[in-house]
Amino acid sequence: MPHGSDILLSLFIVFVAAQIGAEIAQRLKLPGVVGEIAAGCVVGPSLLGWVQPSEALDVLAEIGVVLLLFSVGLETRLGDLRRVGRSAFAVGVLGVIVPFVLGSLWAHGSGFDWAKSLFVAAAFVATSAGITARVLQELGALQREESRVILGAAVIDDILAMLLLGIVSAMQSGESLPLGHLAVILLEAVGFVIVIALVGTRVMSRSSDWLEAPINPLSPLNIVLALCLGLAFASTQFGLAAIIGAFLAGMIASETRQRETLEHQTQPLLALMTPFFFVMTGTKVELTQLANADALLTLALITAIAIVSKLIGGFLGALSLGRRSALIVGIGMIPRGEVGVVVASLGLAAGVFSPRTYALIVAMSLLTAMVTPPVLANLLRRNPE
Amino acid sequence: MPHGSDILLSLFIVFVAAQIGAEIAQRLKLPGVVGEIAAGCVVGPSLLGWVQPSEALDVLAEIGVVLLLFSVGLETRLGDLRRVGRSAFAVGVLGVIVPFVLGSLWAHGSGFDWAKSLFVAAAFVATSAGITARVLQELGALQREESRVILGAAVIDDILAMLLLGIVSAMQSGESLPLGHLAVILLEAVGFVIVIALVGTRVMSRSSDWLEAPINPLSPLNIVLALCLGLAFASTQFGLAAIIGAFLAGMIASETRQRETLEHQTQPLLALMTPFFFVMTGTKVELTQLANADALLTLALITAIAIVSKLIGGFLGALSLGRRSALIVGIGMIPRGEVGVVVASLGLAAGVFSPRTYALIVAMSLLTAMVTPPVLANLLRRNPE
Repeated sequence: MPHGSDILLSLFIVFVAAQIGAEIAQRLKLPGVVGEIAAGCVVGPSLLGWVQPSEALDVLAEIGVVLLLFSVGLETRLGDLRRVGRSAFAVGVLGVIVPFVLGSLWAHGSGFDWAKSLFVAAAFVATSAGITARVLQELGALQREESRVILGAAVIDDILAMLLLGIVSAMQSGESLPLGHLAVILLEAVGFVIVIALVGTRVMSRSSDWLEAPINPLSPLNIVLALCLGLAFASTQFGLAAIIGAFLAGMIASETRQRETLEHQTQPLLALMTPFFFVMTGTKVELTQLANADALLTLALITAIAIVSKLIGGFLGALSLGRRSALIVGIGMIPRGEVGVVVASLGLAAGVFSPRTYALIVAMSLLTAMVTPPVLANLLRRNPE
Repeated sequence: MPHGSDILLSLFIVFVAAQIGAEIAQRLKLPGVVGEIAAGCVVGPSLLGWVQPSEALDVLAEIGVVLLLFSVGLETRLGDLRRVGRSAFAVGVLGVIVPFVLGSLWAHGSGFDWAKSLFVAAAFVATSAGITARVLQELGALQREESRVILGAAVIDDILAMLLLGIVSAMQSGESLPLGHLAVILLEAVGFVIVIALVGTRVMSRSSDWLEAPINPLSPLNIVLALCLGLAFASTQFGLAAIIGAFLAGMIASETRQRETLEHQTQPLLALMTPFFFVMTGTKVELTQLANADALLTLALITAIAIVSKLIGGFLGALSLGRRSALIVGIGMIPRGEVGVVVASLGLAAGVFSPRTYALIVAMSLLTAMVTPPVLANLLRRNPE
């Protein structure tokens, strides 16, 4: 009974493209993730056209990045995060402010009115933790102090970016700024993260025997995966990215005594699912919209602004760790990845961006994601802790 | 950035429902899979309506059953299958003929003309290996002789069912039977299975060192998963179910020296993905179409025909193994599961079935899937090899 064979072919192509891309990248001493994103560009609509975007593939990609941040959470203890809390907070805040200011100045300078400029600038803001997390994990560097600062800052960054998007969206529609409402949203998001992190880790570190109560021999994994999906959903209800909830779920699970087994069992899940995230990220680059000198010049400019502004913000925020570490943190915060793509989609849907601006912002987001891994990997290798 | 939160909620509900259903079933000494299908009925559109069918969920379900049959293949050696080849062949052939004859007699008796009756009967034919495979795996019974006969017969069954569907579809449209064409289809499908099984296992058993050539530490798993997706797709191109290709991929991989590692790594993948298959199977039951005495009576009748006819066919085919083993094989062949659903959908789309007949055939397919696991589990426990 042939059914669903189209999607099976897409799954096969995406999966194999990821393996080939990662292998080539690693042989060139680049992080595997660069090869996976590049493979997505190649098999996607812009070049070969073998893989068309579809809802099903996007869902697989979402599951992939959720599992990835879950596994990163599994390697992160709340106590370690708290120890770097001050630096992470500074990195998160400055890493939002600097790109937002520079981004809106550029947008206004290139002809957008102020309300639209602020919306464009919002696309410069949000760091996508997935790309950096994958590089840190590939290099086994998740236990470094810089990694903890980056991960903590990514959570704060996401909360602030969410607020900012709320503000600039309200300004688009010409409404007066609902400051009281925004304060409630902020409190809810912060409260969600704090309550889940504190209560969750406390419950788990006291006793996790109940994870083994079910009959199913894989039950610790099953319960923890349910927690991961549940918190991923819950965090979207508080305006945060699904990966924030998944990261929290992993951090909670890292307090259990089954932690090592869980880390072990998560590896095959990542092997199957994360390629969909990185390859689908690559397929979203629209090369045709960028195939002229003018567009390429603008792309180079906004990518430079995006990189430099985030680097400055992160570097200044983390200066207390020393210059080298601050540089690593600054670089680690650069990737915008799929979060930039989401803001760009919102802007396109709201009529704020032209298709060309949309393509530029998406390409900028993905370029930052492509550029970061090799530089970060190089820096980490040269500066062992 | 809230995006895709609806689908995250669906994923969470399906996954948790599966865990709860499986747990309750196992506490009642039933196979977990029964609970997962029942959980699907409960959360699906017929009762709570928490989960609506969607393309993305269907793709996850497909990946789930593909991985399941892959892992069953991993526990199956070609040599073992060949040893039971004769019985498996007899079971496959008789298990198609008896249900087809009884099914078409019932359909004709209840008012369909002969051409339509044969189409209805096709829905009685195809065994769905997923349900039985899961029960055999849950009980650790995959190494029993009966299990091998069932798995071998499922492959033959699928080839014959595919041919039969080609024949009855052609008869619907009133074309003359394209016998030459059908012979080609048969030869291609048989050739595909034989070539893949023989060449694949020979290559792998000679040397599987190349599986570890890539840099990626999980590379044996990655390569073998790519093989699984590739053969799943390829088998649909030969008119066979995707799970046949996945089973062959697993069987090929079982010849490698990395077999045990692969078995180990496949477990978490099954834990994550197979619940989607069984829960989504359950959501497809349309209880509202069946909520009257007349429909329920017809349902009882056709389910009885489906069960008894397959049981007789399987039993007679496996008689050379002794009566008890033949009974186990006969029971193991009963589930129609999603294959019956596919035939029913084709019939609905071709205008051969009314929505009521469609609902009846779907319900019959799923009832056979619900009834089999407890009986099979009970028989296997009482008759240790």
